[in-house]
Amino acid sequence: MGRRSFSRRLLTGGAVAAAGLTSLSLSGAAGTGQAAAAPAAATPPRTAPAGGQVRHLRMYAEKLPDGQLGYGLEKGKASIPGPLIEITEGDTLHIEFENTLDVPASLHVHGVDYDVASDGTRMNRSHVEPGGTRTYTWRTHAPGRRKDGTWQAGSAGYWHYHDHVVGTDHGTGGIRKGLYGPLVVRRAGDILPDRQFTIVFNDMTINNRPGHQSPDFRCTVGERIEIISITHGEFYHTFHVHGHRWADNRTGLLTGPDDPSRVVDNKITGPADSFGFQVIAGEHVGAGAWMYHCHVQSHSDMGMAGLLLIAKPDGTIPGYDPHHSAATAEPSPDRPAAQGHTGH
Amino acid sequence: MGRRSFSRRLLTGGAVAAAGLTSLSLSGAAGTGQAAAAPAAATPPRTAPAGGQVRHLRMYAEKLPDGQLGYGLEKGKASIPGPLIEITEGDTLHIEFENTLDVPASLHVHGVDYDVASDGTRMNRSHVEPGGTRTYTWRTHAPGRRKDGTWQAGSAGYWHYHDHVVGTDHGTGGIRKGLYGPLVVRRAGDILPDRQFTIVFNDMTINNRPGHQSPDFRCTVGERIEIISITHGEFYHTFHVHGHRWADNRTGLLTGPDDPSRVVDNKITGPADSFGFQVIAGEHVGAGAWMYHCHVQSHSDMGMAGLLLIAKPDGTIPGYDPHHSAATAEPSPDRPAAQGHTGH
Amino acid sequence: MGRRSFSRRLLTGGAVAAAGLTSLSLSGAAGTGQAAAAPAAATPPRTAPAGGQVRHLRMYAEKLPDGQLGYGLEKGKASIPGPLIEITEGDTLHIEFENTLDVPASLHVHGVDYDVASDGTRMNRSHVEPGGTRTYTWRTHAPGRRKDGTWQAGSAGYWHYHDHVVGTDHGTGGIRKGLYGPLVVRRAGDILPDRQFTIVFNDMTINNRPGHQSPDFRCTVGERIEIISITHGEFYHTFHVHGHRWADNRTGLLTGPDDPSRVVDNKITGPADSFGFQVIAGEHVGAGAWMYHCHVQSHSDMGMAGLLLIAKPDGTIPGYDPHHSAATAEPSPDRPAAQGHTGH
Repeated sequence: MGRRSFSRRLLTGGAVAAAGLTSLSLSGAAGTGQAAAAPAAATPPRTAPAGGQVRHLRMYAEKLPDGQLGYGLEKGKASIPGPLIEITEGDTLHIEFENTLDVPASLHVHGVDYDVASDGTRMNRSHVEPGGTRTYTWRTHAPGRRKDGTWQAGSAGYWHYHDHVVGTDHGTGGIRKGLYGPLVVRRAGDILPDRQFTIVFNDMTINNRPGHQSPDFRCTVGERIEIISITHGEFYHTFHVHGHRWADNRTGLLTGPDDPSRVVDNKITGPADSFGFQVIAGEHVGAGAWMYHCHVQSHSDMGMAGLLLIAKPDGTIPGYDPHHSAATAEPSPDRPAAQGHTGH
Repeated sequence: MGRRSFSRRLLTGGAVAAAGLTSLSLSGAAGTGQAAAAPAAATPPRTAPAGGQVRHLRMYAEKLPDGQLGYGLEKGKASIPGPLIEITEGDTLHIEFENTLDVPASLHVHGVDYDVASDGTRMNRSHVEPGGTRTYTWRTHAPGRRKDGTWQAGSAGYWHYHDHVVGTDHGTGGIRKGLYGPLVVRRAGDILPDRQFTIVFNDMTINNRPGHQSPDFRCTVGERIEIISITHGEFYHTFHVHGHRWADNRTGLLTGPDDPSRVVDNKITGPADSFGFQVIAGEHVGAGAWMYHCHVQSHSDMGMAGLLLIAKPDGTIPGYDPHHSAATAEPSPDRPAAQGHTGH
Repeated sequence: MGRRSFSRRLLTGGAVAAAGLTSLSLSGAAGTGQAAAAPAAATPPRTAPAGGQVRHLRMYAEKLPDGQLGYGLEKGKASIPGPLIEITEGDTLHIEFENTLDVPASLHVHGVDYDVASDGTRMNRSHVEPGGTRTYTWRTHAPGRRKDGTWQAGSAGYWHYHDHVVGTDHGTGGIRKGLYGPLVVRRAGDILPDRQFTIVFNDMTINNRPGHQSPDFRCTVGERIEIISITHGEFYHTFHVHGHRWADNRTGLLTGPDDPSRVVDNKITGPADSFGFQVIAGEHVGAGAWMYHCHVQSHSDMGMAGLLLIAKPDGTIPGYDPHHSAATAEPSPDRPAAQGHTGH
C-alpha cells in the first residue's frame, strides 16, 4: 500500500488482529473505523478512561517498495508515518519488534518510561540486528505526589518514536527514510477526538512526500479533529493552519477561563519536537479547503503545504476544485484526500 | 511619508476619518494621539471594555516611493509595518480592501475567524486583482463553553495580517517588500497600554529597514508600553530586550502568583510567529537607552538592533548620546526616534 | 585547570574564600561540596528561604591556556561555562569585575534588574578596558502587586550572563571563545536540587568542547538533579535528554494537577534562550547511561551529544562501558565524567 499520509486508528479490545493496521488505540475508545457523522453539539465528548492495562503488540521495520523505510503493525503493511499508537497513563506496552531490514535498526521513544534495555540505542545495546527481534517495554504513569511531597508530571503528551541506529548512531538515515511515528498518551479524562491526523515535517517533506505532493486531510464540519505535529531532520519549521487555532499547552485546549496559555495558529518547531491539539473542524469559520503549511517562506514555496478539507454534512466543500487546489504555485497532482480515522 | 518603524494608534469612536492613519483602535480606549505623562502609580490602568461592535474600514495595498510595498488606511499613506488594528473579542471588522498595485494582492489574517471568502488566498479565490476591491470580514469571539460542555479559546492575541499572493501563492514577495501589519485582539478586561511599538523581524531587517538603521522607540519612564513582536520571511530569530522581561503567556503579564509561565527576556521565533507583552518602561532599572535586538550573533552584528529610549520625566535620557548610539559596531545615522502612540 | 564542563556550587555563608571556585550560591542552602547519598524518598526537599541579602563578589575575565576565554571567581581559576551564580529574589549582588584580557570586555546579564551603568555595553559605557575594574550591580525582586493593582513578575528564572563587547558590540567574539555562564534566581520556597549541571549549546559545541568530546555528567539514582540549558552563538538547537522529561514552565516542575504546561523531553532554543528543570535521576527508568544531545540530526552526528551517567547507589552503571560509550559514531576518548556539585 506504500506510503500513507494519515493515521487510521483501529480500536481494539484485545490483541491486534485485523489486517492492514496503521494504528492502534488502547485508550478505551470504541469505534468502527468508519467516518462518524458530525457529533451533536450538545453531546459531551467521550473522554479517556483510567489506564493501567498491560498490552502486547508487534512492530516491524520494513523497506517500502519505493526504497523508503517504515514501521508497521503487520508484515507488509509498513507506512510513513508509522502507526499511531495511543495509550493512557498507567498503561504498559510490550512491543515485540522485528527488524526485517538488512541493516541494524531500533525503536527509540520519547516521553514515556523505559529502562536502558528499551532505549533503542547502540550504546545501550538495545538495537536489533537484521532479521532479529527484541521486546521494547514502554511504561507510563499518572501525575501525583511523591513520598517527599513534591509533584511529579505524568506521561501524557503528544510523543513519537523513531529509529536511533540506521545511518548514524542517532538514526539520521533511518529517520530521513521514514522510520518514525506518533505516540499519544492520554490522561484519564482527556477528551477524545473524532478523527486524527499526523503531520510530520521531516526535512523539506511532509510525511516524506516530495514537495507539492503533501497530504490533504478530509473531515466534516463539526467533527473534533486532532492534529499531531512532529518535526524531524535538519531544519526548523513553523507549523501553521488557516482558520483554526489552539492553546499552546499540553492538550491544545484551554483548561478554563484562567488558563494563561497563549493561543496560537503558528508555532516554531525543531527536530524531535512534537505537540498536538484538537479543534472543532470549521468552528466559527465553516466548511472549506483550509491550507496547512510550514510558514518558512521558502519551505511553503517549495511545497510544504497541504489542505485540511472540511466538508459540509452533505459532503461538498465550498469553493474547492480538486483539479486546481493551488495549495502551491505548481499544478497539483490529482490526489485523493486522506480520510483520517474515526475514533468513536 | 515613506516607511514607518512604529505604530501610531488613532483612537476613534466611529468611522476612520483623520488623515495619515497608521493605526486604528476599536478597543474602546479614549485618547488624544499625544504623549501622556507618566501615569500615577496608584491609578488603576484602563482596561478593555466588552466587544461586540461591527466596524467598517478601508485598507489599501500600495507601492511606496522606494519601491517597497505597504498597507495603509488611506490612499498615499501606506506604511511598513501596516497600520496597527486593535479590536476586542466579539467585534466584527469589515475591511474594504483596494489593491492599487499592478499585480494581484490580498489580505490574509492570523488568529481571528473568517470564512474561505476572506482567506486571502488564490486557491480560495479570495485575492484581489490589480485595481480591484474586495471586502474581507474578520470576526472574533470570547472564550466560553460549548453546548457539549467543552471549553473553547477566545480570539484574543497578538496577531498579524499579511499578503498571501504577491510573488508566490504564499505571498513571499509581498511579505518581503513590506505587506504585513499587526492585529491586536483584546479580551474584555485586558489592561490597555500607554504606548505601543511594533517590531517585525523580516528576513535580516527590522520593519524592512536595512541593517544598522533599525528603528528606535521613545517613551517615558513609568509608562506602560506594549511591544508587538512579529517574525516574517526565511530565518529564525531570538527577540531580546535589555533591562526588561515578560511572562511567556497570552498577555505577557502574569495572571497572579500561581501562574506557572516562564518569565523571559529572550524568545526564539520563526516566520509568522507573533507575541506581545507589556512592561512598565524602566521599572526597577530606570531611564536610559536600552537595546533591543535579535540575539542570533550574526544578525545583531549585521544590524538587527535598535533602541528603546526611555526618558526621565524631564525628557532627558541618562548616558545617551544620539550621535554615538553604538547599538551597532557601525556609526549610527542621526535618526529621530519614533514616539509610538499614546493610547489613552 | 582549563575548561570545565560542569558546575560546582560552593555554598558559602559569607565571602568567597575557597580555592578553585567555579560556583557561588547565596540561596541559603548548606552543604559540603561532597556527593550526597540518594535522598530518602520521604524527606521533604530543602527549599529556598526568603531573599534580601546584599552580597559582594569578585569576577575575572581571563585567557585560558588553550586560548579560549573564561570567567572565574578567582584569578587563574576561570572556566567554561563561567561559575554558576545562584541567588534568591530580593537579593542584591555587587560584582567587582576585573578584565585581565588585552581587549575590552564586559559582563552583561539576563533577567535581573540593573541600571544602564551595569548594562555591560559599549553604548552605555559600562564595559571595562584591559586591566580595568568595574562594579556591576544586579538586583532582584519578588513578584507582587504594584500600587495600581496590576501584577508584576518576579526575577526568578534560569538566566545567564555573557560578554557584550569582545569582537563586536554584541560580544560575538567573547561568547564564541567562552565568556558566558549561568545565573539561577530562586523564588522563596523553590525546591533546591541535590546536584546541578550546566549545558551550553554554543555554536556547534557543548560548553565549548569540540564535537565528540562533549561533557558527561554523573549522579546517583534518586538524586534531584537540575539541568540549566543555555544556547549561544549562531544556530538553533533542540535540547533532548533520554529517559527524563520536564514541564515547559518556569521551574520545569508542575505546580499541581491543574498546571496546563506541556511536558516535554525536547525543546527548540536559539541564541540567548535559557531554561532549566529538575528531575529525579532515573525516576521510573532506573540507573544507566542516558544520552543528552542536540536533536538536530547533523548536530548530534557531529558530536553534540553527551551522557547523563546515573549510577546505582553502589556506584555501578548498568550496561555502561566507558571505553565504548558510543554516544557518537566515533570512538569516544576515555574521559572522566564530571561529578557536578552537591547542593546540600
